[in-house]
Order: sequence, then C-alpha cells, then structure tokens
Amino acid sequence: MTGFTDLGYARVDTDRESRQGLPEVVYAPGKQPAEIAGIVAELLARGTGPVLVTRVEADVAAEIAVPGGTYHETARLLVWRPAAAGAFRVCIATAGTSDWPVAAEAEAVAAAIGLSTEVVRDVGVAGIHRLLAARGELDRADAVIVVAGMEGALASAVGGLVACPVIAVPTSTGYGAALEGVTALLAMLTSCAAGLTVVNIDSGFGAAMAAHRLAQVVAKPR
Amino acid sequence: MTGFTDLGYARVDTDRESRQGLPEVVYAPGKQPAEIAGIVAELLARGTGPVLVTRVEADVAAEIAVPGGTYHETARLLVWRPAAAGAFRVCIATAGTSDWPVAAEAEAVAAAIGLSTEVVRDVGVAGIHRLLAARGELDRADAVIVVAGMEGALASAVGGLVACPVIAVPTSTGYGAALEGVTALLAMLTSCAAGLTVVNIDSGFGAAMAAHRLAQVVAKPR
Amino acid sequence: MTGFTDLGYARVDTDRESRQGLPEVVYAPGKQPAEIAGIVAELLARGTGPVLVTRVEADVAAEIAVPGGTYHETARLLVWRPAAAGAFRVCIATAGTSDWPVAAEAEAVAAAIGLSTEVVRDVGVAGIHRLLAARGELDRADAVIVVAGMEGALASAVGGLVACPVIAVPTSTGYGAALEGVTALLAMLTSCAAGLTVVNIDSGFGAAMAAHRLAQVVAKPR
Amino acid sequence: MTGFTDLGYARVDTDRESRQGLPEVVYAPGKQPAEIAGIVAELLARGTGPVLVTRVEADVAAEIAVPGGTYHETARLLVWRPAAAGAFRVCIATAGTSDWPVAAEAEAVAAAIGLSTEVVRDVGVAGIHRLLAARGELDRADAVIVVAGMEGALASAVGGLVACPVIAVPTSTGYGAALEGVTALLAMLTSCAAGLTVVNIDSGFGAAMAAHRLAQVVAKPR
Amino acid sequence: MTGFTDLGYARVDTDRESRQGLPEVVYAPGKQPAEIAGIVAELLARGTGPVLVTRVEADVAAEIAVPGGTYHETARLLVWRPAAAGAFRVCIATAGTSDWPVAAEAEAVAAAIGLSTEVVRDVGVAGIHRLLAARGELDRADAVIVVAGMEGALASAVGGLVACPVIAVPTSTGYGAALEGVTALLAMLTSCAAGLTVVNIDSGFGAAMAAHRLAQVVAKPR
Amino acid sequence: MTGFTDLGYARVDTDRESRQGLPEVVYAPGKQPAEIAGIVAELLARGTGPVLVTRVEADVAAEIAVPGGTYHETARLLVWRPAAAGAFRVCIATAGTSDWPVAAEAEAVAAAIGLSTEVVRDVGVAGIHRLLAARGELDRADAVIVVAGMEGALASAVGGLVACPVIAVPTSTGYGAALEGVTALLAMLTSCAAGLTVVNIDSGFGAAMAAHRLAQVVAKPR
Amino acid sequence: MTGFTDLGYARVDTDRESRQGLPEVVYAPGKQPAEIAGIVAELLARGTGPVLVTRVEADVAAEIAVPGGTYHETARLLVWRPAAAGAFRVCIATAGTSDWPVAAEAEAVAAAIGLSTEVVRDVGVAGIHRLLAARGELDRADAVIVVAGMEGALASAVGGLVACPVIAVPTSTGYGAALEGVTALLAMLTSCAAGLTVVNIDSGFGAAMAAHRLAQVVAKPR
Amino acid sequence: MTGFTDLGYARVDTDRESRQGLPEVVYAPGKQPAEIAGIVAELLARGTGPVLVTRVEADVAAEIAVPGGTYHETARLLVWRPAAAGAFRVCIATAGTSDWPVAAEAEAVAAAIGLSTEVVRDVGVAGIHRLLAARGELDRADAVIVVAGMEGALASAVGGLVACPVIAVPTSTGYGAALEGVTALLAMLTSCAAGLTVVNIDSGFGAAMAAHRLAQVVAKPR
Repeated sequence: MTGFTDLGYARVDTDRESRQGLPEVVYAPGKQPAEIAGIVAELLARGTGPVLVTRVEADVAAEIAVPGGTYHETARLLVWRPAAAGAFRVCIATAGTSDWPVAAEAEAVAAAIGLSTEVVRDVGVAGIHRLLAARGELDRADAVIVVAGMEGALASAVGGLVACPVIAVPTSTGYGAALEGVTALLAMLTSCAAGLTVVNIDSGFGAAMAAHRLAQVVAKPR
Repeated sequence: MTGFTDLGYARVDTDRESRQGLPEVVYAPGKQPAEIAGIVAELLARGTGPVLVTRVEADVAAEIAVPGGTYHETARLLVWRPAAAGAFRVCIATAGTSDWPVAAEAEAVAAAIGLSTEVVRDVGVAGIHRLLAARGELDRADAVIVVAGMEGALASAVGGLVACPVIAVPTSTGYGAALEGVTALLAMLTSCAAGLTVVNIDSGFGAAMAAHRLAQVVAKPR
Repeated sequence: MTGFTDLGYARVDTDRESRQGLPEVVYAPGKQPAEIAGIVAELLARGTGPVLVTRVEADVAAEIAVPGGTYHETARLLVWRPAAAGAFRVCIATAGTSDWPVAAEAEAVAAAIGLSTEVVRDVGVAGIHRLLAARGELDRADAVIVVAGMEGALASAVGGLVACPVIAVPTSTGYGAALEGVTALLAMLTSCAAGLTVVNIDSGFGAAMAAHRLAQVVAKPR
Repeated sequence: MTGFTDLGYARVDTDRESRQGLPEVVYAPGKQPAEIAGIVAELLARGTGPVLVTRVEADVAAEIAVPGGTYHETARLLVWRPAAAGAFRVCIATAGTSDWPVAAEAEAVAAAIGLSTEVVRDVGVAGIHRLLAARGELDRADAVIVVAGMEGALASAVGGLVACPVIAVPTSTGYGAALEGVTALLAMLTSCAAGLTVVNIDSGFGAAMAAHRLAQVVAKPR
Repeated sequence: MTGFTDLGYARVDTDRESRQGLPEVVYAPGKQPAEIAGIVAELLARGTGPVLVTRVEADVAAEIAVPGGTYHETARLLVWRPAAAGAFRVCIATAGTSDWPVAAEAEAVAAAIGLSTEVVRDVGVAGIHRLLAARGELDRADAVIVVAGMEGALASAVGGLVACPVIAVPTSTGYGAALEGVTALLAMLTSCAAGLTVVNIDSGFGAAMAAHRLAQVVAKPR
Repeated sequence: MTGFTDLGYARVDTDRESRQGLPEVVYAPGKQPAEIAGIVAELLARGTGPVLVTRVEADVAAEIAVPGGTYHETARLLVWRPAAAGAFRVCIATAGTSDWPVAAEAEAVAAAIGLSTEVVRDVGVAGIHRLLAARGELDRADAVIVVAGMEGALASAVGGLVACPVIAVPTSTGYGAALEGVTALLAMLTSCAAGLTVVNIDSGFGAAMAAHRLAQVVAKPR
Repeated sequence: MTGFTDLGYARVDTDRESRQGLPEVVYAPGKQPAEIAGIVAELLARGTGPVLVTRVEADVAAEIAVPGGTYHETARLLVWRPAAAGAFRVCIATAGTSDWPVAAEAEAVAAAIGLSTEVVRDVGVAGIHRLLAARGELDRADAVIVVAGMEGALASAVGGLVACPVIAVPTSTGYGAALEGVTALLAMLTSCAAGLTVVNIDSGFGAAMAAHRLAQVVAKPR
Repeated sequence: MTGFTDLGYARVDTDRESRQGLPEVVYAPGKQPAEIAGIVAELLARGTGPVLVTRVEADVAAEIAVPGGTYHETARLLVWRPAAAGAFRVCIATAGTSDWPVAAEAEAVAAAIGLSTEVVRDVGVAGIHRLLAARGELDRADAVIVVAGMEGALASAVGGLVACPVIAVPTSTGYGAALEGVTALLAMLTSCAAGLTVVNIDSGFGAAMAAHRLAQVVAKPR
C-alpha cells in the first residue's frame, strides 16, 4: 500500500485523511477541469471526509462533472460532503467591506471542514469603537481570523484584545504602497501584539486550515 | 481604574494578565536598564504571573537590579516567577545546529510561561530520514514550532506529517540569497502544506507566545 | 544680493529665514566639525532665528566651538537661540519606549523652533486602553506626531480618533520583517484612516518641521 | 448609542462626522454597487455633511441609484451634498500633464469638502522658469499639494520655495525605474527640503483629506 | 568565414552547432513570425542538428511556414529535426500538477535535443511518501530536473536523496508571497542540500539545456 | 516674456529650443489626443526645430490632426520637421532581435533630431564573434547606444572594446529573474567596463537625447 | 539502524556518504568550536571520505582540536582526509582579482573532494581578449565554474564559448547597485547563453559540490 | 602578442591604453597591497598614461611601495603620472556638503586623467537660487557631473538648464527611505529632464571615466 493513487497527471495523497484528519484539498489554478474532476472522484472514493477545490472560477466549476458538489461563488470554492458544524468556534473579522472575498473563502472553507463560524465585518481601526462593540463575538471565539488589507492594523488591535489564537490574513486590498498585500503581510508579522501568526496574502483557505489544526488539538482526548 | 501604570517612560499595561493570561513581556532593545528594571518591578507588583524580558544581552541583564530573575544566555531572556510546566506539549524542531539560538528563545519562553517543551534538533530535509526518525516526538506534541533558516523547507515537511498546529519561525541563518531570513519567511508563507502559520524572522518569542494562545484555548473549560 | 554666502565648502542659504520663517538647518553627517561651526556662525550672523544642527553625535558636538549652543543628547541635536514657545500645540505620541529617541528629536526640534509640545509615551495598540486614556492630550493638540516602529498601527488608531493633522513618523524599531522601518513606513502610507501624512523613517526632525509649516499657516493673519 | 450602523455588509461609522468633521468616505473597489448605494444612503440619512465615493468607475457610478449625486469622471468621484467653498486655500501643482488624473481627484475631493482650490499645471523642474512664474499662486495658498510622478523632483523645488505645508502625492506616471510610483514616493520622503509630508501613490484623495485636517486646525477658534 | 549569417533583423550564429553541439535556439517573444521562419530556415540550411523555437504561442506557431516542424502545445515549443533519444537519462519531477507546463517544456526540449526523459509528477513534500515511492525513477537518472513553485521545497528533498546533478527550476505557481516565482527561486538557491544548481523562473528550457551540457561531458571520450 | 505658453492643460516650454537646442518633446501617455495636438501646434508655431511625440500608439497617432507629421510604428514616434542628418555618428547595437522595438525608438529619435545613425543588430555575447565582426561599425561611431535585456552583458563587452561614450539602455526583454528590465539595469550600472552610462529601462528616447547632448558639445566652436 | 548519530546538539547524517558519495559537510557559522569538533570526529569515525568544515574563520579553526586537519585560510576551509585528484577536470575562472576568495573556496573544496582543478584568473569581459586567450584551459575542462561579481557578464561570455556545463557563482564584489551580489545573481540567471546554472552568492562551496555531482555521473559505469 | 601580462593573481590588460586612451584602473577592495603594487608597476612599465588606484584607504595606500604616487585622501585615490589638464571642461556640482567625498573622487580622477575641472558645491534644490547663481559655471562646461544623494533632484534641475551632457551620480547620503542611494539612483533614471545619463551609486570614478569618453570624442579629428 503506497498511500497514494497515481492518476498520471497527479499523485493523489489518499493517506492524508488518516494522517491529518482531512483529505487533500485541490488547488485549481493550472489544472484542467477533467483533471480536477478526476482527483475529486478519487478523493471521494478513497476517503469519507469533505472534498474541496479552491480558487476555482465559476466557469471552470461548471465544467467539473462530479455529482454532489456545491459552489460558493464569492469564495470561489467547490465542496463535496461538507462536515457538520463542530464545537470549535472561529470568528472571522474583516477590516473593510473590500476584504470580504478573502474572508468569504475563510468562512466557506472553515464551515465545510466542520468549524462553527461567526463573521464580524468592517471593524477597521479608523473607527475603533466598531471593533470594541464586537467584544462579545471576539470573546466567545476559540480562534479569531483577522482579514485586512492596506496597513493591516486590525490584526494588532484584535491581538491586543483577545487571549485566544489570532490568525492574520493580509489581503491585497489597497493600492500604491500597499504593494498587492505585501505591506499588510509585513505589518502583521511585526505586530506589537504578541503571539499573532500569519498566513499568505489573500489566503482565507490557509487561515481556515490553520484553524482546523487548532480544532484538532482541542478535540484531542486528554 | 485605568488598567495601566504611567511610569513616565512607559505605560505599563497592568490589565494584560487578566485580559490575556500573561503579563506584558518587555522588549529590551532601545530601553535603558533602569527603565527595564522599573517596568519589571511594576509588573511583579501588579500581577502574579511570569515576568519576561526578551532580547536582553548579558551585560544589560547584569545591570537590571530586580531580585529573583534568571538569565538564559543563549535565549537572551530574563525571567522572574516562571510558571510550572502545564499539560500543553510543544515540540521545537530545528533544521540545523545554527538555528539553535532562535529555538532556544522559543524553548526558554515557552517553559517560562508554563508550556511543556521537547526539542528535536538538526532534522533538516537534506537528510529526511532524520526527520522521519522523530515521528514519535512530533506525534505526541500539541503543537510543533519549526525553526529553520536558509530555504526553510523543514516547515513544509513537518506540515505534511503532523495534524496539529505548526508554527514556523524563519531564521536569518544563511547568506547571500537567504536575504537575512526573508527567503525562509517567504517560503514558509507559501508552503505547499496547508494550514501552517508563520511568525517574524528569528522570533522564537513570537512562536512561544502563539503556542501560549493555543494552550489557553485547549485549557478553556467546555 | 545673492541670498547665500559661499563658504567654499557650503553655500549657506541666508535667504531661507525670510522665505520660510526659519534659518537653514544643518544636517551633520558627512560634514567636518569645523565646517559645521562655520555654517552655524554664518547663520547666527545673518539671521535672528533659532539655529539647529541635527544628527550630531556627542563627540562631534563637543568639537563645534560656537558659543551659546545647547546639546540634546537623546535627540542628537545642537541648538542656538531657541525660539520661545508659541501658541501652536503639538502632541507627540509614541507606540513604545523603544521609539523614544526619534520622538525626542521631534520634541527637541519642535521646542527649539517655537512650538508648544506635549508627549504621550507608550500607547501602542496592543493595549488600546492606554491610547484611549490619552484622549485629553490628543484632543487639545493642534497636530499630533505619531512615532511608531514595527507595524506602525498607532498612526491609524490616532488618525481615526482625532480631527487635526496627524504626521506619522515610522521608526526602525523592530527586527526581521520590520525591514529597518520600511514596514512601518509602508503601513502608515496605506493607513485606513484618511488624511494622514508621513515623513521619512526615523525623521523626528522632518515631523517637527512639518508641524512648523502648520503653525505658520495657523498664525497667518486672515 | 453605538456610533455605527450595521448594514450586514458594512458597519457605517455614523460617529465620524462629529468626531472628525466629515462623514466616512466610501472606497469603491471591491464593493458591489448596491452596497455602495446602501452605505451612501445611510450616511446621507445620519449626517449633514458631504458624502463621497472614491475610485468609482463610470459604469459602476451609473448603477448607484441614490439621487442627488454628481459624478466627476477624471477624478472617478461621486459626490452628494458638496460643501460650500471655505476660506482655506489649497494650491494643487502638477509636474506634467500626465499627472492630471491624480490631481483631478485631489481637486474634486478638496472642493467637495469645502476647500478653495487653485490649480497650477505642468510646472515640472525640467523647465524651472515655469514654476518660478507660479510664485503668485504658491504664495497665496494655505497649503500646496504637489502631484508628480517619475522622479518627483517638483516636491523638493516647491518645498524650498514656500513656507506653508506641502503635501506631496507621488504618481505612477512613468515607466521602468519609475516602479509604478515607488520611485517618486521614495524621492519625496527623502526630499532635501525640510518639512514636506507625503501620502500614498496616486492618492489625490489622501492629500485632499490631509488638507482638510489643516483647514480644521486653522478654523479652530483661539 | 564569419560564423554567422546576417539576415538584417538577426545575426544567426551558424557556428554554434560545431562550438556547442546544438544549433542556436530561437526565443520567440518579440519576434515577427516571418523573422522566426527566416531564422529557422537558415539554421536548417546551415546545420544538421535539431532546430527549436521556444515560448511560441499556438497562433504564432501556425504562421511559421517552414515545413517539417512539430508543435508541442503545452510546452509552447516548435521542433524541426528532433534528435534520437540518447543514453543520458533525465528524470523530471514536479511538485504539483500546476507546475506541469514548465515541466512539459523541459521534457519536450530535452527529448528534442536527444536526451532520454522520464517524468514523475506531483511529488511535493506535503506528502513526502509520494516522493519516497519514486526512488526508482530518481536513482536510475543521470540528472534530475526538479520543477516546483510556491516554496520550492521539493528541490531540497530531492537534493538530499540523490547523488547525481539536480537542476532546480522555480515556477511562478502560487500567489501572494510566492512573488511570481521569486520565492521558489531564492529558496532553491539557499537549499540546505549541497550542490544543487538553479535556472531562471519557469525556464524548463534552461534546465533541459543544462542537462544537454551534462550529457555532452558524459559522452566525451576519455 | 515668460518663456512658456499656458494652454490650460499644459505649460509649453517655448524657451527650451534656445536653451537646449531642441524643442520640448511630448510624452504621450496620459494625455488626450487633442491635448497632444495642441502642444504640437504650439511647438511648431514657436520654434523651428523638430517636434516629437513619444510612446504614442498607432490609434492615438491617427487622431492627432496636425499636418505634416510622420508616424514610426515600431518606434511609436510621431515627428514633424525632422532635422537633416548631421556629422555626429551614433551606432545602435542590440543584443537580440527582441530588443528591436527599443532600439527602433532610439534610432528614429536620433534620426529625427539630426544624428547620423547606424544599426548593428543581434550581437549578444552568447556568440561573441558576432560582436567582434562589428568592430568596423563600432570604431567609426562617435557614440554607441547598447540596447540589451536579460542580463545586459553586451554593454560591458562593448564598453571594453570602444573608446567613445557608451550609453546603455536596459530593456524589459526576458522573464522571471529579468524582473521587467531591472536586472539589465542593475547589471549595466555595475559594469566592469569603466565609464559606461545608463538610461531608464526601455528608454530608447533617453539614449538618443543623451547622444544629442554629446553631439552639441562636439559641435561647439572651440 | 537509523542512519544518523544524535550528538544532542546535532544529528550527524552518517548515511550520506553511501547515499551521495561524500560525507556531510559542516557549515561553521552559528556552531561552537566544540560542536564542530564533535561532528567532525563522528564523521571521521563513521565514514572513510573527506571531511570538510566551511566558512570557518582562522581563530575558530585554531580551536577545533581534531588531529589531521588542514586549514585553507583564503578559502576559510578545514579539511581532513582529502581525496586524491580524480579524472574530472574543473576550470575555475574569475572575472577579477577581488573575486578570488570565493574562487579559492571553490578550488579548495573541489580539490579536497577529489576533482582536478585549474584556475584562470582575472578574465572579465572589459578586456575580452584575456578570456579568448584562455580557450585552452576552458576547452579541456569537464566543467567550468565562473566566479564573478558586479554585473557577472563573464558567465554569459564563457557560456557562449564552451559546450560543457557552466556553474555560475555570483560574488558580492562591487558596491551600490551591485546590491551585495544580487545583481550578479539575477544577471547570471537571465543569461542569454543557454544552459548555465547558478548557485548562491559567494558560494564557492556550492559550485564545487555541484561539480562533484557531475563527476559522479561521469564516473558512473555504463 | 597577447595584450596582457599574467601576474598570476591578475591578468593586466596592457592593451587598454591603445584601445581606449587610458591604462586599466585598479579597483583596490579585495586586493592585497602587494598585488596592487605589482599591477601598478606593470602598468607603469607597459604604458605611458596615468595610473590610478581607486577606493584605497589611507592605511592600504601607505603599504603600496611604488615610487611616484600621490594619495588623495578624501577621494581615496592613488595616482602616478597624472595627465596635464586638457581642453575639455567638466563642472562637478554637488547638492550638499555631505556629497563631497563622492564629488572629490570625481574631481580627482577627472584631473588625473587630463580633464579641466571646476566645482560648484551645495546647490541643492531646497534653495534653488543657489543653483541659478551658478549658471556661469554650468554654461561654460563641456559636461556637468551632478553628485546628489537623498532624492537626487538636483540632476533634474541641472538637466533642464544646460544643453551639454549631464552625468548623474547618486550618493548614499541620507537615511531611511534613501535606501543607501537607491532612491537617488532610481530618481535620476526617471528624471523628467531628457537625456541625462546615470552611473552607479557613489561612483565618482565612473562619472569621471564617462567624461573622459566624451573628451575623447570631442578631441577626435574631424
């Protein structure tokens, strides 16, 4: 038993579900619809967990002929066999309305893999009272995913308020010196609030997967 | 009640221990020894938890006249009132021997704030069997802190093996195209292993604090 | 009348005081002590306003033999003929104690050129209540100079609170992804709070001079 | 009273007009026309000042069905309830004709929020006599907004001529080593003329808002 | 005899085949179809080896009216007079399915110039067992071309396993901090596995040509 | 007499021809066709020298209704009243065929402003004998403009061969690590051949204008 | 059998000699002399091949008390049990005298691991006849290591002349736009000469190890 | 006749004087004093022109035992057999006093190789009248070398005033966003004044050598 299936165009890691609690997730860019469909079918056949395709545009999604999938347009996500919502609560906070597509990916992925989600939108620090008014949502979360572009200051503000893990997602919102999200990325990495962690620019997916790792350790019998 | 003490040269956040489970940690660079001593004394007086000063060189540490502190030389860390080791287990893995000072900071901070730590050194991917031989240590951890410079590939390898949270710490080990740690940082952020999170270059401290946030959510009564 | 004096090694702009309300300020790096002394003497002889030398180390300052100067060590500033404190009030806020040397330059320059100054230290967003407690100082200011390194989020928080001009000074405080102040610089330029302006990294001098321009327009008879 | 309205997709900061003298300004990119319309309607209902939408393309503007708005095409700006022109005079100077769209945004925003504006176009330093001929416009201004791409040298030249605040706006005009405006940005930040301040690349909006902060402090009763 | 033919728009290096064992290869971007055709015809007339055009899109390829050419669509390669497969064996390994177009160029060029090729797809380190299962292919290769984007960690893993030359090709697969392939490039250059060499981003062509140089030295009579 | 004409949208520098020997040259991007036409008409009316518009696409050129102009398509140049060819000889050498559009601009501009031009194409260092065969053209030139992308090594090779001024023009030819011409730019600036000078990426125009300055000093009566 | 020895501070990869033909090489920076000595002793005990320590300064080398080592000062290399010179011939060419320390490392490592070496110094392209005079040395090599800083053009020139593998080593020689070797690195990666490969900046070691991989494939029985 | 002398550590290009009108110039960094002395002696023996060593610190210069040399301390230049001042006039203009060391190198090299030099110091654009007062010096020059750090705006101002060649030398004067001279370099490359050329950061030497090429073409019989 090798732990993978060789489809020629892909080596599907069929061992990942037992190893990490979730099947491999398919990254769509650069793959043909037929290739995506083949991988999805294999993952559905070999495992029992949720099967996801990320960064898939609507027209590509329409060509992936595997029954039972649901497409989330803003999140650009395809899901088969979503998990039921579990006990781990993730709060997803955005700095501005323009950050929503990235947050939508975080939310849709998190929901699909069995996390309970709550969204707090548009609480950027330019009007800090909006964030302070969301203390309830923040305090009841097991982890907070902060989604912010431009200077990304929301991550520091949230990091200073809550005790739980904070996963910062820089977005490419903004222009000029925002450098396509690099500025928010660097700012989040150098936050004056201790213990924040950061994922790649615009990676709502990465943040949700990081939360899944947290949920697994919380759920581990002790 | 303001939640801080104004020492003139610093506003000590005396509210942080109740808010986040740990007193404020003092970052030494740019502060006078007397200022550090004053802040430490205030934190000791106003709270009950461990008090830490990070990035403090030996000669500066020697000038900080607050009784009861312990200095960790490789970690450049001063600690008062360290916490007892708790149930949360952190495994700290380094790619090479040269990454040890950063890992030492992660280890010393983690221990001081009450995490149980285990270290696996020198398991870089150039000899992948060394990492595979450490599966035991990795599998019993609640979180893994991966400390690696140069190309930082260890983070991806570990991320693909374990189910628990992985906190990647890029180090400035290396030369030329290593760009003082920026290459490892970028590489870790774009890891093909899903759900990794990353902290600042050489920030063993940041990784330990991120682990502390995890430990708190694990310890939360449910 | 040419409007300058040619000292051979420098063309002293003797017209600047009438043109801009302040004599030329001398930037010390790369100049010999005797050259600095010569320029200072010329400026004192040709005008009536305060004469300043910036970024001058203590040992160099000691060699500049022009009577009547005062040296500000932390600010690395030499001043002759300081102006009396005027009606324009500048509040200088720092994110952390480590930002103090840059703020000290802003404060000392501002005071020397006739602005009234007030300092609020260590109000970084990791403990946002410390900033909110400084509303009084912020509200009575005619302009706020925000001095912050790392991710520089304090500028956005202040920018969202006050109505007056905010001049953001990024500092080189921090390490790794802080990139010697470039991260704070980029973050401040892309702040979600509208109407902030930014000066060069570590340029407390630049911020004070920008405030002086504000003071002049406020003082203009209408 | 929370100081904001939660529209689901946005938390409208209804407190900003009283806090900062102007309602929140809507940044269009990444928002749906219906969302923009909803926010505008809320701002109109909750305040009395001018309501602006920036960076809105003509086709999007046409879909925003809130009566009473005026669209400025070159400035890509939508305005409701523009303020009457006040006493504060802003001179907007451009280095070249190609910088006009950014200057147009600065001019249109400034006018909409109640500043008096005057434009001086095409006075780049390659023909310095063109700038010297504009001394009249420069001297009667309360603040000068300098809009320049390529090497941005106009900001230094103006900064050396006038005593009032100079707000430099780098533009993305140019190619190659102009690096999409980064070169002008860096050049303006390191100007040899003291006391200049800088906003984000292509941000005519930011410059106008900075001028509004100036106007408020000038108008403050003393 | 000059060793080149001057076609006006190009100086065709007709000496290269005798000097380096292969005719000049034509880089299509920026050339007119007629120019490409002219150069190809000249190369076919003056030499006996394979003639290649790289980075040529399908529509351009269709306009190049030189008989006998074969177009490889994914590789964007045109070939005349391909060489017979020789004794030198190149294994081309990809980290993910999205890296295939670059690997396809490496494979098609290598085959056209007389190398024996074998492809191992989708063996990224996130599932390291997939790579370990390919030891057979790796061990029988004379050289391995590793094609990987994102963090490029596959190069280090392969470099630690095999004794033969490893040519690393970073790809622009990924987003955000992947920086269009720069991250993979830097990571491969700083690999902890010794003796790796690296070619330009997305340059499957460059890797195949490097392998050709190896094959020539292996084939050299001793 | 002000030395310029204010057209509202532009201040045409009518003094430049007497000051620098050539009328102002119009940079098309960001200008309306009618604006360009207006400036051209003014320049034709106020001076006697050649009038040029650079970087103008064919469709824009077609809309500029000023009689007597000639359009150079590859060079994207419009010319009125071209100068007669003078005694100063410029040799324009390209590394590859793909660099031709930039060289074409250099050639067309140089010809239009009265320089004698000679072109040597496709003499990149990968086949150094092609360059050595062009010694005749190089030796009879008064200045050499080297146009090269990728690593730009041709500039160093030419710089080591000739005694006359060498103006290096980096081009954006290439991909990946070529960084849109930045690599060639940096390489040319750090050439081991002494006394090379460099202009902006893709600026055939800048190189021709630099040659014009040379021609003027050569022509100066002594 | 695990294939490594755990010394506590290091996991020595004792399997590498059988896997890759050479024992692990020790990178000195960041390691204590006693740690280096311990690793060296272990490698000597467990294998039979040459044992090397790289980047070791003279004072550190003096503290490493393992008998039988030889120190190469310019190369900063310590060697035990050097291999006899084999049949594979490496030519090491430098652009300038200032590149010698990096070339010295390449030469010393190559010699220690059993390659025959020949050095050609100071053949930069500013005097191309110096390189052409070295055709003999170049032509009899099995591989050429090109060591060059500044613009690194020598790599392209050599790559165009020889048929064998060319390993380019950028050096940090130069200043300003040389960017500590980054410019040479980028230039070498984008060489117009096909099939060059590149290693890290200043990595004479990496180039020698790459040559060793070549030598192994050449020596493989067929 | 090979055109060079092989000293072992260097291949001295003895052909350069006849090829380019000046012997090879020795770049000191990375060379031993004895090596420098050997090269100098060879150049003196094989040619008749001036022999120069650049970037040589005083202590190194003192060890170079070749009679007849003169050391210029600020310029860090050693000269043997300086040329007599010729007819070609170079004006060297600096923006500030801190740029003097780079200008001093330009001046000393230019003088040593036979150019007539004139220096205009401290004419930065912050006081533009100082530059306008230097019109005489500028107008009688055959070429102007502009030496400026920070934002380098002086190059554009001079470029707009004079008709002759302008060679811009960016310096590393400044801090923060000046990025060690990169900002001035980029700014000079994107100057709005047409026909400027640029050399490497801090390369007074490069500018003087470029002027020498100009002088040679001017002196060419016609």
